[in-house]
Amino acid sequence: MQAEPRPDETPTRTKGPAPGSAADPADTGHGATAAPAGTAPEGTTAAAAITPEELGLATRNHGLPLEALRYDVTPTGLHYLLIHYDIPAVDPSTWRLEITGRVQRPLSLSLGDLEARPQVSAPVTLECAGNGRARLSPRALSQPWLHEAVGTAEWTGVSLAVLLDEAGADADAAEVVATGLDEGLERGARQHYERGLPLAEARRPDVLVALRCNGQALPPQHGFPARLLVPGWYGMASVKWLARLAVTAEPFTGYQNTVAYRLRQAREEPGAPLTRVAVRALMLPPGIPDFFTRRRFVPAAPCRLFGRAWSGQGPVTAVEISADAGGTWQPAAVDPPPAPHAWQAWHAQWQPEGPGDYELWCRATDASGATQPTEPGWNLGGYAANHVQRVPVTVGPLS
Amino acid sequence: MQAEPRPDETPTRTKGPAPGSAADPADTGHGATAAPAGTAPEGTTAAAAITPEELGLATRNHGLPLEALRYDVTPTGLHYLLIHYDIPAVDPSTWRLEITGRVQRPLSLSLGDLEARPQVSAPVTLECAGNGRARLSPRALSQPWLHEAVGTAEWTGVSLAVLLDEAGADADAAEVVATGLDEGLERGARQHYERGLPLAEARRPDVLVALRCNGQALPPQHGFPARLLVPGWYGMASVKWLARLAVTAEPFTGYQNTVAYRLRQAREEPGAPLTRVAVRALMLPPGIPDFFTRRRFVPAAPCRLFGRAWSGQGPVTAVEISADAGGTWQPAAVDPPPAPHAWQAWHAQWQPEGPGDYELWCRATDASGATQPTEPGWNLGGYAANHVQRVPVTVGPLS
Repeated sequence: MQAEPRPDETPTRTKGPAPGSAADPADTGHGATAAPAGTAPEGTTAAAAITPEELGLATRNHGLPLEALRYDVTPTGLHYLLIHYDIPAVDPSTWRLEITGRVQRPLSLSLGDLEARPQVSAPVTLECAGNGRARLSPRALSQPWLHEAVGTAEWTGVSLAVLLDEAGADADAAEVVATGLDEGLERGARQHYERGLPLAEARRPDVLVALRCNGQALPPQHGFPARLLVPGWYGMASVKWLARLAVTAEPFTGYQNTVAYRLRQAREEPGAPLTRVAVRALMLPPGIPDFFTRRRFVPAAPCRLFGRAWSGQGPVTAVEISADAGGTWQPAAVDPPPAPHAWQAWHAQWQPEGPGDYELWCRATDASGATQPTEPGWNLGGYAANHVQRVPVTVGPLS
Repeated sequence: MQAEPRPDETPTRTKGPAPGSAADPADTGHGATAAPAGTAPEGTTAAAAITPEELGLATRNHGLPLEALRYDVTPTGLHYLLIHYDIPAVDPSTWRLEITGRVQRPLSLSLGDLEARPQVSAPVTLECAGNGRARLSPRALSQPWLHEAVGTAEWTGVSLAVLLDEAGADADAAEVVATGLDEGLERGARQHYERGLPLAEARRPDVLVALRCNGQALPPQHGFPARLLVPGWYGMASVKWLARLAVTAEPFTGYQNTVAYRLRQAREEPGAPLTRVAVRALMLPPGIPDFFTRRRFVPAAPCRLFGRAWSGQGPVTAVEISADAGGTWQPAAVDPPPAPHAWQAWHAQWQPEGPGDYELWCRATDASGATQPTEPGWNLGGYAANHVQRVPVTVGPLS
C-alpha cells in the first residue's frame, strides 16, 4: 500500500497522481487536475507543455494520421477514437438492447433481432467535440487533440426511427436517453456513459443503431455490438456499446449533457449544449515529413494541395488556402458531398514563391455562411475549436 | 511566406517550430529539439511535461488501450502503431517486391506472385523499442510511450527463407536490407525507412514477408501490401511497405541501424544495436477508471488481476505482483505461450488490506533469467525501458 487509508476521503473523489499539482474536481467536464491558482481557470492550464495525465489520454485515444485524409472512407484502425472509460467486454450471445420509458411496447432486442431488421448504410464523418483543444490557452485539461480527431466510416444499422415507431413512443416523448455499457468516474461521479438526444433528432431517418463499420461487425473500440450514430453532431452523441434507449418526457439532466459538452466561459454559467459539428477543413500535409517535428519538406515546384472539409451545418461551399498567414487567400476546388454527412474532398495548386519556410493554412465555409476563425474561440471545456490548420513547410532542394 | 528565404540554409536541415527552443539535430536517433543546454544531454529533455512535438507524435501514433490486453489477438485498430514518416499510398496492381543484391536469381514479385506461394500464419507479439521511454529522466525527445506500445496480431505470409532460397543468396551473404516505401527526414538525413537484418535471423523459418493481418489484407497502417515480420525482435526490424530486399555481403550502415535503435549512454559511443524484446508484463487495470487521471476504483473485496507477459529471449517463466511498492511480491499463474512469439496470459488474486490508495505493480521473468527492473535503465535514445508497470488504484465503496 502506498499510503495510509484516509477514512475521511471516499474513493469516488478523483485524485491527481502528483501531490502538489492535484486539485479538486474541475470545471471542464472532464479534467480533474487544475493549474496553479491564479494562472488559469480551475480545470485548465496556462502551460504550453502537456501534463502527464494528458499524455496518458493521448497514448490511449487515437487520432487520424493526417495522410489518411487521402481515403474517402477511413480504413479501420485509422479513425479517431475517444474512449471515456474502458472499452467494455461484451458477450454478443447474451447482449440485449432495451428500448424502454415512455413507449407503448417496450422492446428487448438481441443482436440477431437487430440484424433481421432493414439495414441502412452511409458514409458519415465523425469528429470529437474536443478536436483542436490543445491549441487553446489556457487549455482545458482533457484529451489534448491538435486537429486529428476525425474520421469517415461506412456505418450500417437500423434506423432509430423504425425502432421508436415499433416501440410506440408516447405523445409526450421529448428525448431518447442512450446508455452505454462503459463505466467510470468523472469529477467524482460514477456513471455509465449516457446522453440524451432530442426526439426530433432521434427521429431523423439517418440516425442509426449501427451494427457494422466498413462492412464488418463493429470493432470493440467503435461500440461492439451496437452504437448510436448521429450524423452531423459531434461524436459525443453517438453513444457506443449501447445497452438501453429510454424515451423520456423531460430533457436528460445527466453528467454528459449538463456538466460536460457545454460551451461556457465560466463555471457558473449553464452554457449552451454542443450539438452540430462546426465547419473545418484539413490538409493532407504535402511533401515528406521530418520524423520528430513533422515539418514538411517539398521541392521548389508547383505543389498540389489536397484535403477534406466538413460541417454539421450543411455542405461545405468553399475552401481557401493561404501561404502568407491569412494575408491573401486562394480558392480551392471543392467536390460535392458524396453523402449528406460525409467529408468533401478539395484540392488547390500552390506555387511557392521560392525556397524558404512557409506555413500553409486552409479554411472552409459552409452553407450556413460560417467560416473557420484564424484563432480558436475560447471556452472552458475546449470544445468546437475549429480554427484554421497551420502546416509548416520548407521549400527547397531535397538532398 | 512566414520568413525570408535563407539561401545559406538547406531545407534538409530539420528545424524546430519554436524559435528559441530549437537546436541542431540531436542524438537520440529521432529527436530534433534539445532541452536548454546544461540540463540534459542534447536531444533529451529533463522536463516532466511533454513538448508540443512529442504531443504531435502521440496524437498520430497509436497505443494499445490497456483493457485490450484481454484479447488473445488484438483486434485490428487497437494494436500499437509507430509510423516514422507517412503511411504511403501504394497501388497493389503495380507494386513489386524486388529481391536483389548478392543473389543468383534476382526476383521481382507481384502481390499475386507472393499470394501464390505457401502461406504461414502465427500470432506474434510486436513491441516498439521505445516503449516506456516517457518514464525516463532525462527523456529522449521522440514518441513518448508510457507502456502501451504493444499488440499481438495473427500474421500470415511467405517465409523469407523460402524467398531467399528461391533467389539463391550468395555464399558470402551477411545481411538482408529491407527498404520501405515510406520516406522522410531524421536529423536532416532524407531516407526511406531501411534496416539491415543479419542473414541468420532472416533465415529463421518464422520470419515472414507478411501479407495479411488478422485474416485480412494488411491495413495501410501495418504495411500494405507487404511487410517484414521478425518475431521476437523489437518492431523496428519489421519493415513495413516493403519495396526491396537486398542481400548484402557487409553489415548495413544506414541510419536506422547505426544512428537510431542503439543503446548508448553518450553520443560518441557506437552503442549496441537493439535486437530482441526485453521481458515485460502488463496488467489490465482492474475496476473502473477516472476519465482524466485513469486512476482505478475497485470495491473492497478480493480482486482478480489479469494481464499479459512476453519476451524476445524465450518464454516468460514467472510473473509476480506487488501492492507495497515491491516490498513483497506474490506469484501469478502464467499460461504457456500459445505460440513461440505470442504473449502469455497471467492472473493472480489480490486481497486489498482495506480501503485506501494502492499502487499495483507487476513484473515478469523470462527463460533467460532476466527480470524487469523497478526503475528503467537509462539510455540516450530511451529504448528497451522495461521497468515495472505501476497502476494507481483506490479501494473503497463505489458510490
